[in-house]
Amino acid sequence: MTILAGEVNSEIQQQLLSRYRRVRGETEQLVDPLSAEDMQLQSMPDASPTKWHLAHTTWFFETFVLRPHFPGYRQFDPGFHQLFNSYYNSLGTPFRRPQRGMLSRPDLDTVFAYRRFVDDFIGRLLDEHLLTQELETLITLGLNHEQQHQELLLTDIKHALSINPTFPAYSDPIPEEEDTGQAEELRWLRIAGGVYGIGSEGEHFYFDNESPAHQQLLQDFSIASRLVTNGEFLEFIEDGGYRDPRLWLSDGWAHVQQNACTHPLYWQKREEGWHQFTLHGLQPVATAEPVCHINFYEADAYASWTGKRLPTEFEWEAAAFQLRRPDQLATANLLEKRALRPLAAERGQTQFLGDLWEWTSSAYLPYPGFRASSDAVGEYNGKFMCNQKVLRGGSCVTPAEHIRMSYRNFFYPHQAWQFTGIRLAGD
Amino acid sequence: MTILAGEVNSEIQQQLLSRYRRVRGETEQLVDPLSAEDMQLQSMPDASPTKWHLAHTTWFFETFVLRPHFPGYRQFDPGFHQLFNSYYNSLGTPFRRPQRGMLSRPDLDTVFAYRRFVDDFIGRLLDEHLLTQELETLITLGLNHEQQHQELLLTDIKHALSINPTFPAYSDPIPEEEDTGQAEELRWLRIAGGVYGIGSEGEHFYFDNESPAHQQLLQDFSIASRLVTNGEFLEFIEDGGYRDPRLWLSDGWAHVQQNACTHPLYWQKREEGWHQFTLHGLQPVATAEPVCHINFYEADAYASWTGKRLPTEFEWEAAAFQLRRPDQLATANLLEKRALRPLAAERGQTQFLGDLWEWTSSAYLPYPGFRASSDAVGEYNGKFMCNQKVLRGGSCVTPAEHIRMSYRNFFYPHQAWQFTGIRLAGD
Amino acid sequence: MTILAGEVNSEIQQQLLSRYRRVRGETEQLVDPLSAEDMQLQSMPDASPTKWHLAHTTWFFETFVLRPHFPGYRQFDPGFHQLFNSYYNSLGTPFRRPQRGMLSRPDLDTVFAYRRFVDDFIGRLLDEHLLTQELETLITLGLNHEQQHQELLLTDIKHALSINPTFPAYSDPIPEEEDTGQAEELRWLRIAGGVYGIGSEGEHFYFDNESPAHQQLLQDFSIASRLVTNGEFLEFIEDGGYRDPRLWLSDGWAHVQQNACTHPLYWQKREEGWHQFTLHGLQPVATAEPVCHINFYEADAYASWTGKRLPTEFEWEAAAFQLRRPDQLATANLLEKRALRPLAAERGQTQFLGDLWEWTSSAYLPYPGFRASSDAVGEYNGKFMCNQKVLRGGSCVTPAEHIRMSYRNFFYPHQAWQFTGIRLAGD
Amino acid sequence: MTILAGEVNSEIQQQLLSRYRRVRGETEQLVDPLSAEDMQLQSMPDASPTKWHLAHTTWFFETFVLRPHFPGYRQFDPGFHQLFNSYYNSLGTPFRRPQRGMLSRPDLDTVFAYRRFVDDFIGRLLDEHLLTQELETLITLGLNHEQQHQELLLTDIKHALSINPTFPAYSDPIPEEEDTGQAEELRWLRIAGGVYGIGSEGEHFYFDNESPAHQQLLQDFSIASRLVTNGEFLEFIEDGGYRDPRLWLSDGWAHVQQNACTHPLYWQKREEGWHQFTLHGLQPVATAEPVCHINFYEADAYASWTGKRLPTEFEWEAAAFQLRRPDQLATANLLEKRALRPLAAERGQTQFLGDLWEWTSSAYLPYPGFRASSDAVGEYNGKFMCNQKVLRGGSCVTPAEHIRMSYRNFFYPHQAWQFTGIRLAGD
Repeated sequence: MTILAGEVNSEIQQQLLSRYRRVRGETEQLVDPLSAEDMQLQSMPDASPTKWHLAHTTWFFETFVLRPHFPGYRQFDPGFHQLFNSYYNSLGTPFRRPQRGMLSRPDLDTVFAYRRFVDDFIGRLLDEHLLTQELETLITLGLNHEQQHQELLLTDIKHALSINPTFPAYSDPIPEEEDTGQAEELRWLRIAGGVYGIGSEGEHFYFDNESPAHQQLLQDFSIASRLVTNGEFLEFIEDGGYRDPRLWLSDGWAHVQQNACTHPLYWQKREEGWHQFTLHGLQPVATAEPVCHINFYEADAYASWTGKRLPTEFEWEAAAFQLRRPDQLATANLLEKRALRPLAAERGQTQFLGDLWEWTSSAYLPYPGFRASSDAVGEYNGKFMCNQKVLRGGSCVTPAEHIRMSYRNFFYPHQAWQFTGIRLAGD
Repeated sequence: MTILAGEVNSEIQQQLLSRYRRVRGETEQLVDPLSAEDMQLQSMPDASPTKWHLAHTTWFFETFVLRPHFPGYRQFDPGFHQLFNSYYNSLGTPFRRPQRGMLSRPDLDTVFAYRRFVDDFIGRLLDEHLLTQELETLITLGLNHEQQHQELLLTDIKHALSINPTFPAYSDPIPEEEDTGQAEELRWLRIAGGVYGIGSEGEHFYFDNESPAHQQLLQDFSIASRLVTNGEFLEFIEDGGYRDPRLWLSDGWAHVQQNACTHPLYWQKREEGWHQFTLHGLQPVATAEPVCHINFYEADAYASWTGKRLPTEFEWEAAAFQLRRPDQLATANLLEKRALRPLAAERGQTQFLGDLWEWTSSAYLPYPGFRASSDAVGEYNGKFMCNQKVLRGGSCVTPAEHIRMSYRNFFYPHQAWQFTGIRLAGD
Repeated sequence: MTILAGEVNSEIQQQLLSRYRRVRGETEQLVDPLSAEDMQLQSMPDASPTKWHLAHTTWFFETFVLRPHFPGYRQFDPGFHQLFNSYYNSLGTPFRRPQRGMLSRPDLDTVFAYRRFVDDFIGRLLDEHLLTQELETLITLGLNHEQQHQELLLTDIKHALSINPTFPAYSDPIPEEEDTGQAEELRWLRIAGGVYGIGSEGEHFYFDNESPAHQQLLQDFSIASRLVTNGEFLEFIEDGGYRDPRLWLSDGWAHVQQNACTHPLYWQKREEGWHQFTLHGLQPVATAEPVCHINFYEADAYASWTGKRLPTEFEWEAAAFQLRRPDQLATANLLEKRALRPLAAERGQTQFLGDLWEWTSSAYLPYPGFRASSDAVGEYNGKFMCNQKVLRGGSCVTPAEHIRMSYRNFFYPHQAWQFTGIRLAGD
Repeated sequence: MTILAGEVNSEIQQQLLSRYRRVRGETEQLVDPLSAEDMQLQSMPDASPTKWHLAHTTWFFETFVLRPHFPGYRQFDPGFHQLFNSYYNSLGTPFRRPQRGMLSRPDLDTVFAYRRFVDDFIGRLLDEHLLTQELETLITLGLNHEQQHQELLLTDIKHALSINPTFPAYSDPIPEEEDTGQAEELRWLRIAGGVYGIGSEGEHFYFDNESPAHQQLLQDFSIASRLVTNGEFLEFIEDGGYRDPRLWLSDGWAHVQQNACTHPLYWQKREEGWHQFTLHGLQPVATAEPVCHINFYEADAYASWTGKRLPTEFEWEAAAFQLRRPDQLATANLLEKRALRPLAAERGQTQFLGDLWEWTSSAYLPYPGFRASSDAVGEYNGKFMCNQKVLRGGSCVTPAEHIRMSYRNFFYPHQAWQFTGIRLAGD
């Protein structure tokens, strides 16, 4: 790579650098309430320690941007190449995921020094070097990757803190964000059948799994105007929903029986009523708020109980697009609002963006014509396209900048530690 | 139910009875080479003992036909209601599946007596009673159910016998069904994009999961003219296919590592070369024959290695329909041929029907508008629509009468004890 | 080996042959009520199919007697060498124990033919060949081994039949063996401390683990005059014994919690009261009969609840020897009585022999100076001397000829499928 | 409790207080090289985080000394009663052991504040209150308990750090503690048979499991003059010791196969030869040093390979007592020496104390007449007397004040993360 002095420091490079610094700073702001000990915790193989998130997102920039593209770059610590690789087998065998919580060394200070070190080089890269298209793509990918981990970092620490019988809070609740007591009435919105454009294409950023943009033939369907609430889900519980095998998929019923499930994750019944563990500690279950930390099996069983069903991801995308409003992103309950929990739907809010990731009935599969890219970054999404379900719409811990109508999130049907909820559909 | 003497004994009822007797007789013919001890074996929770298959298929007729529809019917043995229920939770808690092999009582003679008992009542039902539409539907469903179990019975006993280190044979091979030594050259068949009709509707029998018939929008694609052969798959093995994580889905790679997979199920390397356990005992791997007992992960990894992919179930159905030939069913390698193994593709045979079930890339999901029926028989298919993959086309142990272009079989991605193989597709 | 015609056919050889035929015949008599299907069952890795017992005991004579000692002997089937090896690693890798139930081939008829074949050769050996000391020792060991398996085949088939929800019986109960309603009052017998001779030596048969005979220094102790009854154990249950961690060893409490134990194996509470599965099917729990199918943890917890303890194996042997009576063996409830269940203690019966194996507090360890013999037969006992507990006294399914005061049986503390019970001791 | 001013502040109370402060200070000195992040680690259910050790030892004094014996004492934090209870079920359900590593809160500073708080009250108790016999016993028990945890915290952190692929050191090695290159020649010491006194009694401290003192009848035996070395164990490895089932106990062989064992814990073969992870990081295996982190199965298999055996705990105690030397404790390699690893035996050192805990062939069982005390402290030792093996002699991380000839340590046969080694014996 040649330094072409006359062309660098352009406005685009400065904008990218500014965005880089903002996103990286937001990550560090999110971990501010946590101690080094908190950031060491790993409560299950699916989750990672906060400290690991801080290092891995940095590793991404070092591995895919600096090492191939900054001439003469020398790694902060060569051992980190293995330690903070998540799952890129083409880069060597990653350190065993279930034992990430065992890495007391490097300590937190060293991980912050690693962030500084890489940040400085990215700064120099964007100040002094010519930004190629490839580089801009990689840095933008890195920032979107970091935003994903902002969300994961919060759901992972929530899970870790939930193990502690003293119910420690990540942060204090925002005062005056009170339980409204009543949810908006649920309405059924009709969407006409036809051929709909699905997925993303063009200049803006999107993940490879959102492409190729293509057409899907849909039949007429209806979709609920808001998410299912705690109050509605309580009726399912009280009606014996968790005990009736006819409501459940076969694998779901096996899961319920093996794990003796009787309520959503983080719920517990106390003498004074149902409570749920939140990022603000243990709180009463507010009936008007959307029911959350629901796995796919629960979402599907609830839908069966109502006589409805979950939407496909194509129906979801078509409906969300049709029903979009100009101020939707600005008013949605996303990370920036810092509610850190789903909120009751107010005056006509559809909750298509924010609040909770919405389970769809669609399996996570490649779009027609999808090909994973052949380089290491190509391991990004394609290899997970099996056994998982698509979720749509982002949650109360998703950064606003990160979410799109075409965004495809994916988890296994039994997983519930993300902020996940239910929207019903019908034929 | 009222007996209307003037209307019974019609030709339709006699035809149905004749078919009933034939299908039931075929089942018993299939178990003829097996001893009572063989028929007791259950080698894994996924499989069932032969004796259990004999009883369960009978239970189906007793439970769904005789008990509700034959006035005054009394069960052969009331305990069988629980013992031979497979998974219909709405009929009570079934006996634990993994312990079906523990039921030495009832003994085989009693199970055959049970078959006779039920067969007699079905005979009386069709001789003496008016056949309603509902009854005809249920009996036809029962016969298709029995045919499914004819296939399962053979794959289950194959698995059970494979555990025995003496490699016992189910039966002797048919002489003169020799290895042709060379497979037909693989050609790529082009199918034009467009809207294709998918699924079944109308008068003939089909399972609920094949409906509603509906339209799918497909892009142009190509599809292989035959199945992948053992010889081709050996190249994948020898090229290190089982050791390269980049070829595998993430869950597939985990499966390969946890189970130390290095070859297909039933294969073993001996001094004199690769062998595979078959229903005729241990046999050399014939390079021209289709590779079989492949799980979805292996099929997908093989496709990645070739730079191709698996077809979707919609592409498969559209292609199979487009390329059908008049004598296809008659010439296909299905159960009636008694080869009991896949055969090398001859002169232009496409192998779309018979030989091996073909993994598709499609998840097993409901067709648009699908609703499971609300009675007990409604547990039939819908509750399995999660975490499984669709396979198409039938195998060398599928009865010819049982298979259709629209037939959707489904198994978990890691399962390989059915006769499963690979057909490639491309964009 | 040379045939010395003048010396064979002696009375001793004929006596041994006669004993051989009797013991072998007793085994076959025991399996008489079972079908080939019953004899195929293996309900857990710890247990073996009846058919396997029939073959393995035969394998023992073939492997350790005929092959090394009968000139020119040719195996019945060379494959049996691996199939019916139990755990003699020095003879090659045995077939995997948990899959013994998968061996439908050889079938039962072949196994009986195998028995005939070996029996004939043993007959010829004893008729025609000179009996060396080594040979006599090996055949006697083989007969004791066969008697062990007579007991195991009954406990294994009991476990297998217990899985069947129809509670099938191995045989009908002997009429007039009724519940006496009341057990003998429990008395405490004092044994003075001192140096006691322990173990066996001399001409009669004993297992290697009973030697070397040696001395143990014991303190004064007392021992119960009979076994603990069902009625007494019910008090423990009703007093919350299974719910109080203070009564249990740490590993025992973990076992109780992991398995949700609330009663002995084979017990179940029905509307009409407690029942237990027996070799005669499901029967009411008779309060006067000894409580059986107790694991060591239960025995120890029960003893803690009473404020007493279990005896050491040395205390047991010293007490049993001190308190022996001339007619003890003849009157004891052993296999020959065919009660097949423990019986209430009558008029001064101590139950030291028969009824139930009695858990001692002793770990199964080598006696001072014990050395396992270095040949294959030497794998017999020594390698199990870890993690197991000693039981003493024989049970209602132990052949009378097989039991001795010095006999050391051994099982893991969690195991309860043998006929095991509790005798208390005190300081 | 009444304060009797005239009697307190006695020399005895001040000595006890001084000892209390010294032992508590030693614990804190041991954790000095560790960060809060290090002290959070729990690498397996058997091990605990350092921070938990710091809190639990404090909880012991609070629970058994201050709460019952300091009038008006109020807990530092009532929630700690559950959090830092190890296994005393009679005090309520302890927090789940495998999740101790999830307790980021309370943080390390709070745990140190807890220690200060309890230390202050103990100081006041001993300054201002009359010391009863019961109180002195409890405080002395608490100090011995704390010394046990000093050893455990080092073995636990060693295991935790070993997971980290960068092999972090707990501390730097002491310079000039070099590999001597050659071990003392092994000699066989004869001990005559007879009646030996075993166990502890009298005024000095000992654990309940060392009592009652009693007599054991021993036969003549010989015992090795030092521990088995790495060099000697390497011969076992190179001779195929890990591959020969005849050398292993049955459970040991199963363990070797399930875990694919080929060398001791913490060993790894590098290009430049065998290395082992130590508290000073990865180090070459020094042939003259005792082989350590050996489990019982390995110890027993090694002994079989040599044709020798392990001593019983009674033989060990008799031999160690017979062969004791005046300066033995002063010269032994115990914690105070800070070698933190076993050292090669020098000039006639027998290594009976220090270096490594020595596996005996004895099961961990109660001594004759042993009764666990009935209060909560009574859960201390008795309930573990099942399935474990006795180890004797202390190790390089045992405090000198803590060890005695009669001291009985105990672990499961498969465990190797303590500093454990092998001493041979013979008949």
